[in-house]
Amino acid sequence: MSRYWSSLVHRLTPYVPGEQPKLARLVKLNTNENPYPPSPRVVEAISEELRNGGELLRLYPDPAADRLKEAVAARFADFAITAQQVFVGNGSDEVLAHVFMALLKHELPILFPDITYSFYPVYCGLHDVAYATVPLDEDFAIRIDDYVAPNGGIIFPNPNAPTGCLLPLPAIASLLARHRQSVVVVDEAYVDFGGESAMALVSEHPNLLVVRTLSKAHSLAGLRVGYAVGQCALIEALDRVKNSFNSYPLDRLAIAGAVAAISDQAYLEATRQAVMRSREALCSDLRGLGFEVLPSAANFVFVRHRLHDAGELAAALRQRGVIVRHFKLPRIDQHLRITIGTDVQGELLVEALREILA
Amino acid sequence: MSRYWSSLVHRLTPYVPGEQPKLARLVKLNTNENPYPPSPRVVEAISEELRNGGELLRLYPDPAADRLKEAVAARFADFAITAQQVFVGNGSDEVLAHVFMALLKHELPILFPDITYSFYPVYCGLHDVAYATVPLDEDFAIRIDDYVAPNGGIIFPNPNAPTGCLLPLPAIASLLARHRQSVVVVDEAYVDFGGESAMALVSEHPNLLVVRTLSKAHSLAGLRVGYAVGQCALIEALDRVKNSFNSYPLDRLAIAGAVAAISDQAYLEATRQAVMRSREALCSDLRGLGFEVLPSAANFVFVRHRLHDAGELAAALRQRGVIVRHFKLPRIDQHLRITIGTDVQGELLVEALREILA
Repeated sequence: MSRYWSSLVHRLTPYVPGEQPKLARLVKLNTNENPYPPSPRVVEAISEELRNGGELLRLYPDPAADRLKEAVAARFADFAITAQQVFVGNGSDEVLAHVFMALLKHELPILFPDITYSFYPVYCGLHDVAYATVPLDEDFAIRIDDYVAPNGGIIFPNPNAPTGCLLPLPAIASLLARHRQSVVVVDEAYVDFGGESAMALVSEHPNLLVVRTLSKAHSLAGLRVGYAVGQCALIEALDRVKNSFNSYPLDRLAIAGAVAAISDQAYLEATRQAVMRSREALCSDLRGLGFEVLPSAANFVFVRHRLHDAGELAAALRQRGVIVRHFKLPRIDQHLRITIGTDVQGELLVEALREILA
Repeated sequence: MSRYWSSLVHRLTPYVPGEQPKLARLVKLNTNENPYPPSPRVVEAISEELRNGGELLRLYPDPAADRLKEAVAARFADFAITAQQVFVGNGSDEVLAHVFMALLKHELPILFPDITYSFYPVYCGLHDVAYATVPLDEDFAIRIDDYVAPNGGIIFPNPNAPTGCLLPLPAIASLLARHRQSVVVVDEAYVDFGGESAMALVSEHPNLLVVRTLSKAHSLAGLRVGYAVGQCALIEALDRVKNSFNSYPLDRLAIAGAVAAISDQAYLEATRQAVMRSREALCSDLRGLGFEVLPSAANFVFVRHRLHDAGELAAALRQRGVIVRHFKLPRIDQHLRITIGTDVQGELLVEALREILA
């Protein structure tokens, strides 16, 4: 506390990200990182940007990152997405921060699930956005009939986090049609691991914004690149906020690496299929050990054991060098969120659980 | 305009950065980039972070960037700066955005010069910060006696931009002592080119925040890294806002490159001396051509010709492949801001001016 702080700072409750331990040799299944390295084209493209002793680094990057917007548009050419319908930022967390300020701050409260990405209420605190939470049903599914209240916007991850549950595309289309007066933000951080993208709905729905990250399916959590796709009026609002905040949020190396990653569709396809296969194997093993496993369309599973306390399980796993995420929150404090690693990591996890449960 | 925009978006007047032309072969003296490449250690450190096919990129960076804070503290060890007194961000523009929200948003208006970094009023618009401008004196100098009004904070670049004029350290100390009730932010983007840093005053003044960038003296405009130094209460306010906005604003490569650049004091010394020598040579040539040249402690000069219109000169230079910055703003619309390039670039500029003025 300090007299120099703005009144806002006194009120803030910051987000707490999953631990980034500095120890090596851990089986790190706590922050939904991809177990595979990025496309080989990423390092090639970054190395090219570093040529001649890094002489390009002395120059500002393109403030609009047009090459990256074009790469995103090309990836979604099937849905007729254009570069003008793309906004890019320093991770989807920065994109989301701007979305709350530009498109979700209105008189009416916005709506999001009671169990969801825990950064959403933090953004609301930062930008003074009114919100109300809508409970997931007893199976942890989003029920669109529950979103009938007048609202200033709706936001949810699809698949949802930390549950991994998917809302089918027809339900999203129905939600968009019912709420034409407000923006519906679909946060597709994990959609490449088994969901159907709402990109298909952008051309028909001026109130839809789809947010993506390169941190998960593209194995680039360390590079900090995210984007949003929507019709031009929504993108213009985000550009206005961005250009009032930071002209150059993406550095030269992030732009080069992100373009390369998004352009390598074959690599994305191979690695996402591998993660999905490992997920199915792990789900089967976990059920065999007495866990209830929610159906997951993400690169993590959300599980609870019938007999054992989740916090105690997480602590016992940590003692054996395996880190998973445990949220001490209402309704989910008996669940664990476990990232899908390699098959070897999955076996180490299962081995550790067998010891603990023995 | 769209019904989906928050009321804030309708009100915003975004910042317009200097042009980043996509043409090669221009003599680009418009955005104060360093003419020299970054320290060779930067590419080495980034390449090391890219080892093994970029496998580290799949992992989130350290959200606190502790290594970078330690490197900053080590650089300013003479002033007893500790890593806990350092805040880092995605360029000093992001750092400044958080500063406005965390430390400059109060009941009373903040104060800054009438002629200064034109992003300051943009941040005020974004975060709804009241402000009043204080005119520079007739020599474009900041006069601290003019900052007597009750205020919610004071901010200025030192040396000031786009003038290049320096406020001596004793004047800053005096300003800090007179305004103990509010935060004084000294934006030292250009200080390595001839100013005395206010870092020396941090330990004695709880209301001082010094902001720095790696874009200018460290030749890393393309990498997007900035930082702020102040006593811990000020840093905590910035951390709270940052952790409510984006957990990981600096990617792995930016952290690695920034640590390497800051640690290479010898390279910084050599390149800043070279820029200062080129500046003195250019100032002499420009005076010979009939320009009035303000004394500059930055990597740019602010000049006006006794006989020629600044806008016409800028246009004529552009036709000859030389880009400088012309601000169509009150009091300075007859000035040009010219970045110090290499000696060769300086000669090309002078040659072009000779042609134009002939």
